[in-house]
Amino acid sequence: MTGRIAIVGLGPGAPELVTPLASETLAAATDLVGYAPYLARLPERVGQRRHASDNREELARARQALELAAEGKAVAVVSSGDPGVFAMASAMFEAIETGKSAWKDIDVTVVPGVSAMLAAAARVGAPLGHDFCVISLSDNLKPWDLVLKRLEAAAAGDFIIVLYNPASKARPWQLGDAFRLIARHRASSTPVIFAHAVSQPDERIDITTLADADPANADMRTLIIIGSSATKLIAKDGRPAFVYTPRHAELALP
Amino acid sequence: MTGRIAIVGLGPGAPELVTPLASETLAAATDLVGYAPYLARLPERVGQRRHASDNREELARARQALELAAEGKAVAVVSSGDPGVFAMASAMFEAIETGKSAWKDIDVTVVPGVSAMLAAAARVGAPLGHDFCVISLSDNLKPWDLVLKRLEAAAAGDFIIVLYNPASKARPWQLGDAFRLIARHRASSTPVIFAHAVSQPDERIDITTLADADPANADMRTLIIIGSSATKLIAKDGRPAFVYTPRHAELALP
Repeated sequence: MTGRIAIVGLGPGAPELVTPLASETLAAATDLVGYAPYLARLPERVGQRRHASDNREELARARQALELAAEGKAVAVVSSGDPGVFAMASAMFEAIETGKSAWKDIDVTVVPGVSAMLAAAARVGAPLGHDFCVISLSDNLKPWDLVLKRLEAAAAGDFIIVLYNPASKARPWQLGDAFRLIARHRASSTPVIFAHAVSQPDERIDITTLADADPANADMRTLIIIGSSATKLIAKDGRPAFVYTPRHAELALP
Repeated sequence: MTGRIAIVGLGPGAPELVTPLASETLAAATDLVGYAPYLARLPERVGQRRHASDNREELARARQALELAAEGKAVAVVSSGDPGVFAMASAMFEAIETGKSAWKDIDVTVVPGVSAMLAAAARVGAPLGHDFCVISLSDNLKPWDLVLKRLEAAAAGDFIIVLYNPASKARPWQLGDAFRLIARHRASSTPVIFAHAVSQPDERIDITTLADADPANADMRTLIIIGSSATKLIAKDGRPAFVYTPRHAELALP
């Protein structure tokens, strides 16, 4: 008997942002597989087994899920945010492509979720209100030169830029380099948002500018949004209340 | 008494992709404001008023919501997908910025939702598994030259490209031009996904290639995903089953 795998997006953290489809899929699973802190968000269920793993073990986790499904289990692989955005879905398909041929016959579905970038944007207004780029700043799995090339392209296109994985203990300098590169193309007053642990108990959102953005304020759980030339603040009682990018756009001068 | 406004993302269409926070916010509203087909997705509630409007009237709709909130109403402005991605949130903040000064004091929140691009990606695998750009192909509110500039930048950066608003009766030729521009940078075998009405009863997903992509297959309710140089298919029983972009990336040759 062949089982099945659902790769389930839990959203950014708050239970009220978990979709009913995700909740139903989790409830129907015999086995939950995932990074330990994400599994810890979920209620314990009698008869349901948990397989918690460390971070940065995506491929091993994906293979474990495939082995369980091949044994006939109904597996839910949990992911923060949306599973398709710098999360578990890509690792799962890589494991299928490079793994046992029988794994290609396992029923695999992806349950989308509210991604961290959408939740972060919602907290401050509508900074993603126009064309944007989403870039992982991690050079663990790609050359740093490719990150630079993409940052240059995103800056040249005057895109709003979302940065996932901006910093970690092992990658302390990349975000500073990214800010400096973008500052060669954009005004120092460009809004920059640091969104830490969005919708979680220790959420912290800072709105600053490209001139004042301090890379040391970012860690593994931070998401960065850098405005385009059109992104602006609406001040409220003298302090910034909303950040938004208008629907209208002009062709910026070269 | 001043009321409040929540700009609520309904997700791509299926009720099981509406978050609990969105459902609770809609239930607590005295007034619902939105494009008629989106309001039609919601259950009628005794005592709750509906203000349906036509498409392409975002700013008038936003002002109507602000007038209602200024009268003390609890207004929910509904949006398909996520309100921050080519939807109602940006129009709402534009209406606040350019409207009556008292409107700046209204309590406005954004309830994020599962965007169409995340739902579309989930249906086919993990095409957004690496760095990507999101571009509206509509030139109603921006010059076509800016669209071309951004498509060039996205192609130069070897980003996966998501196209919102690819076509309408009034904009029949733009998507063909976009495909031709990208084909100058990418292999003709690059995967292209046409996702029509994702998660709705008339959903239709077509996986094709840049060489075979037919712009006539897109309309107002279609979303397009064009792979990067790394995006690939996993064939299953001789037909394409999954599309995914690996987590690893190389610096493509110039």
